[in-house]
Amino acid sequence: MSQEGLLRPGIAQLRVLDMDEAVKHYVEYLGLEFVSKEDDGRVYLRAYDEFHRHSVVLREADQAGLDFFAFKADGQEAVDGFRKRIEDFGYTVDDVPAGEMPGTGARIGFTVASGHRIELYADMDLSEDAPETNSPMIWKTMPRGMRAQRMDHCLLYGPNIEEVEKFFTEVLDFHVPERVDMPDGAFAIWMTVSNKAHDIAFVKHDEPGKLHHLAFFLQDWNDIGHAADIMTHYDISRDLGPTRHGITRGQTIYFFDPSGNRNEVFSGGYTAYKDHPTRVWDHNSVGRGIFYYERQLNDAFLSVVT
Amino acid sequence: MSQEGLLRPGIAQLRVLDMDEAVKHYVEYLGLEFVSKEDDGRVYLRAYDEFHRHSVVLREADQAGLDFFAFKADGQEAVDGFRKRIEDFGYTVDDVPAGEMPGTGARIGFTVASGHRIELYADMDLSEDAPETNSPMIWKTMPRGMRAQRMDHCLLYGPNIEEVEKFFTEVLDFHVPERVDMPDGAFAIWMTVSNKAHDIAFVKHDEPGKLHHLAFFLQDWNDIGHAADIMTHYDISRDLGPTRHGITRGQTIYFFDPSGNRNEVFSGGYTAYKDHPTRVWDHNSVGRGIFYYERQLNDAFLSVVT
Amino acid sequence: MSQEGLLRPGIAQLRVLDMDEAVKHYVEYLGLEFVSKEDDGRVYLRAYDEFHRHSVVLREADQAGLDFFAFKADGQEAVDGFRKRIEDFGYTVDDVPAGEMPGTGARIGFTVASGHRIELYADMDLSEDAPETNSPMIWKTMPRGMRAQRMDHCLLYGPNIEEVEKFFTEVLDFHVPERVDMPDGAFAIWMTVSNKAHDIAFVKHDEPGKLHHLAFFLQDWNDIGHAADIMTHYDISRDLGPTRHGITRGQTIYFFDPSGNRNEVFSGGYTAYKDHPTRVWDHNSVGRGIFYYERQLNDAFLSVVT
Amino acid sequence: MSQEGLLRPGIAQLRVLDMDEAVKHYVEYLGLEFVSKEDDGRVYLRAYDEFHRHSVVLREADQAGLDFFAFKADGQEAVDGFRKRIEDFGYTVDDVPAGEMPGTGARIGFTVASGHRIELYADMDLSEDAPETNSPMIWKTMPRGMRAQRMDHCLLYGPNIEEVEKFFTEVLDFHVPERVDMPDGAFAIWMTVSNKAHDIAFVKHDEPGKLHHLAFFLQDWNDIGHAADIMTHYDISRDLGPTRHGITRGQTIYFFDPSGNRNEVFSGGYTAYKDHPTRVWDHNSVGRGIFYYERQLNDAFLSVVT
Repeated sequence: MSQEGLLRPGIAQLRVLDMDEAVKHYVEYLGLEFVSKEDDGRVYLRAYDEFHRHSVVLREADQAGLDFFAFKADGQEAVDGFRKRIEDFGYTVDDVPAGEMPGTGARIGFTVASGHRIELYADMDLSEDAPETNSPMIWKTMPRGMRAQRMDHCLLYGPNIEEVEKFFTEVLDFHVPERVDMPDGAFAIWMTVSNKAHDIAFVKHDEPGKLHHLAFFLQDWNDIGHAADIMTHYDISRDLGPTRHGITRGQTIYFFDPSGNRNEVFSGGYTAYKDHPTRVWDHNSVGRGIFYYERQLNDAFLSVVT
Repeated sequence: MSQEGLLRPGIAQLRVLDMDEAVKHYVEYLGLEFVSKEDDGRVYLRAYDEFHRHSVVLREADQAGLDFFAFKADGQEAVDGFRKRIEDFGYTVDDVPAGEMPGTGARIGFTVASGHRIELYADMDLSEDAPETNSPMIWKTMPRGMRAQRMDHCLLYGPNIEEVEKFFTEVLDFHVPERVDMPDGAFAIWMTVSNKAHDIAFVKHDEPGKLHHLAFFLQDWNDIGHAADIMTHYDISRDLGPTRHGITRGQTIYFFDPSGNRNEVFSGGYTAYKDHPTRVWDHNSVGRGIFYYERQLNDAFLSVVT
Repeated sequence: MSQEGLLRPGIAQLRVLDMDEAVKHYVEYLGLEFVSKEDDGRVYLRAYDEFHRHSVVLREADQAGLDFFAFKADGQEAVDGFRKRIEDFGYTVDDVPAGEMPGTGARIGFTVASGHRIELYADMDLSEDAPETNSPMIWKTMPRGMRAQRMDHCLLYGPNIEEVEKFFTEVLDFHVPERVDMPDGAFAIWMTVSNKAHDIAFVKHDEPGKLHHLAFFLQDWNDIGHAADIMTHYDISRDLGPTRHGITRGQTIYFFDPSGNRNEVFSGGYTAYKDHPTRVWDHNSVGRGIFYYERQLNDAFLSVVT
Repeated sequence: MSQEGLLRPGIAQLRVLDMDEAVKHYVEYLGLEFVSKEDDGRVYLRAYDEFHRHSVVLREADQAGLDFFAFKADGQEAVDGFRKRIEDFGYTVDDVPAGEMPGTGARIGFTVASGHRIELYADMDLSEDAPETNSPMIWKTMPRGMRAQRMDHCLLYGPNIEEVEKFFTEVLDFHVPERVDMPDGAFAIWMTVSNKAHDIAFVKHDEPGKLHHLAFFLQDWNDIGHAADIMTHYDISRDLGPTRHGITRGQTIYFFDPSGNRNEVFSGGYTAYKDHPTRVWDHNSVGRGIFYYERQLNDAFLSVVT
């Protein structure tokens, strides 16, 4: 009991067009730690406040986007249980052997109705540079750049999000803190497997498998302002913000990595419990739901994805 | 799966010496909502960002302290399951019928080895004044006073905390993000049933059943400063802070209600997962663990309890 | 010596289309104190941290805008000295007798080359509700609304700003912390008579006598975020922000009162001394100078004035 | 007119017991820039947001303390004028030739009644690393350590502070935003020559010529918290804070350099004008005046000086 099964987003594998530029962006500007570059060219990164070996994996490719988003489970038994439930739901599950990523155990993968690959795994080594656990300082070395504390969640664009919601809630045991309902059905859903306000979110979109943004958690609104200072200083392409989301109440900036993948840095947001009612937004208020201060969507929100 | 069984601290029933003074303190200064005063004289309070009817209950008595601390479960079935496990552990469980508190279902109660009464329950009405769920504003009315968002956790003093830890982890499914180990054994333990850094904590103490503090969550370090401004303005007795805890990394102030019960307002703190290692503090660093900036305990920390 | 002559912006008289709506905006939302409404219909307001009787005066009229902006001098002798220097510069000076505003001494007025009326005065009563001076609390009553601490500066639009600069620096003893130079000359100038980063600013514009915004000082970036929360809550028309200015480095939001007068709330900004070099922006960087995060002007910046 | 005569604190020359330790403290921890070490062993430092060559000078000596505190004037003519007024007041003025410090013009020096040496000067080179003035970024390189923006003021301990007040106000044109009056006369005075809340302050003390603290300005309360984090991380000796002063309302931490000189980092504080009444504290409230949250002095405040 307590939190059982899936724990949290554990790995996001991103496609980037130029690895050197991408590493500079995520390490120098966002403030992630460089963990390793492996023979296949993939680069492994970790936020300073994460305990496990890596959380963001960069793969050089011709097209930007998200290869997959993986959730860490609390044991292999849980992963095996999910495999059965996923197959019972009708999805095909494939296996990724232990060691496909350094320090990482076996993973299972499958594609949900929105066209995104999701993976589950139970084992990853603790980082050699993990936060201290013996009479620790609050940080080992002073956080750098935008001071990202952890890879937090992603927002994905694709079709069939009602089925996606059904799958995540019935098979993977997520709950739904927030949703946007349009006259013709669900437009967007925010889901969590913990009591963070969101671990993953989906927006309805014709083209499958698209990434809207990958988000990183900052300490507070002051660090959001500091992140904005850094974006201008290093001429990082900014989409919108500093602002607040009505949905989740997070304080936020959207911006882009050099390959065009949208990033988010955010802080705040409420603590979600599954006995809290779902917050529901209608088509008249969706603009305020997404961008609380602007009270309307910008063009990029609905169209720019990778 | 996901979070199952117990969800969070749901009710703290405090003994206060003078009800009017206590209400003024918790409503005007701390910023809780007054929910109701019932025929038996108990007063029910709720933080503005909580969904359910009440979280803090005040009872006038000759001696200050904590009557009990109750956790909300995700269903009656879970409560029934815990009853069996608690009895199997060897504790006596008693029943509090639905309606003993307004809007609140049946509770079960028992006394742990530190001498504290703990209760579990599954049902409480949603507040008529709960946070909005239809295209909500981030708050309905501007937060007042110290802007307490929720009743968050308590720290309790009593003997036999090794047994307490065993009970909470093995029977109630808590995990232990932080502990202080002295040469003669555990001195203090911080435990959570969710991924908040702590839902309840215990410090070893000769006298059983004592309350060290009841804590309320604020938005950020700026609200901690604002709370300190309010304490001086209204001449509220302050113990220590603004400072930071090394343990949990929370930013904090300790102060007292008019009956001498210690309150805490705090912000920040990390997100705890059960696959994170426990942080362990030794006797040389416990001062920094408790008060990160002062790097030593004050006299009151070990001696002033109710 | 030390600061001699003019001290600071002291009075801004605004034209508003509907007095009741305007009072609601400036008192409830911005957080100014209502001082009085006089027989001629003018309403006098004061920020909670100002010592003197009033700083913002509202006058109902058919067209929004700024009647005049007045600077407080350190004595009548200084005002008399300025009168001579102004007349020597070639401007006509008129007199406003003591008592034309309650609690306010004689003023002199004149029109600068941009078409704006500027006034100087030496005497105003201290507010009966001024900040405490005997063992004071940091505030008497908790700041309300957006928590505006003081009326701070204005930005005005009009022609001939080179002459305006010459007049303010040579006759009124201002200095120029920042300017924007275009290939065809000065586009904008920020001037101060103290060591605030700006007490008044001008942007070149064909139409004379226009108001771009009247600005109010907030404590910090957190209060800027809080002000944005309030703007959405009360559906106040927002222009842009939260963002930062490159010029002055202030953290800022532009928004509108119900009559269409632009307001600014801002925090931060450096301390300016007259032995600091002027910061100069060119036409390639003016966007970043005005809106540091957006790095470009919005349409409203150049066109929406009252 | 506007600010004439003296502009601001320009140079503080501190005695330190071990230069290497001192440089580490002020450069790595406080975040000052290392400017130069000269043949006589003195080290010159500058805060990142200051325009002129240096502001803090360290001199190795057997005893910690302050050699002198120097104010920058707006021209040599002003310095000459002050020389006459100082001599008329009855103090002896000596000359320090240009070049005694690199990049620094002639200074005049004198000893005030509290036993402290004060200097005045008009000329110092701009720093080669000064803040940008052509379409500047808000900082050239990201602020380090505690992110000190400028050397701001000092608090000095010595006898005869009534005469000191008379001298600073009548001869050097300071005004007095705050004072503490005891039954037997002035206990402490805060004075400014600008509209910062204080440029220099004095507390009555038997021993002449003592330094209570040298203060550095930080951006806001969040940077105060960050500075506290750094103090614990690097085991810097802390006196008190984070807290707030009632006097000036600044948010503050007192701590010590390795030689025992007390430093302060602070943020906030009001804008002082000479037509604002002096805030006066009495002996019952001096504790709250100095430490607003603690509401009482600590032992060190009155006894630990260098």
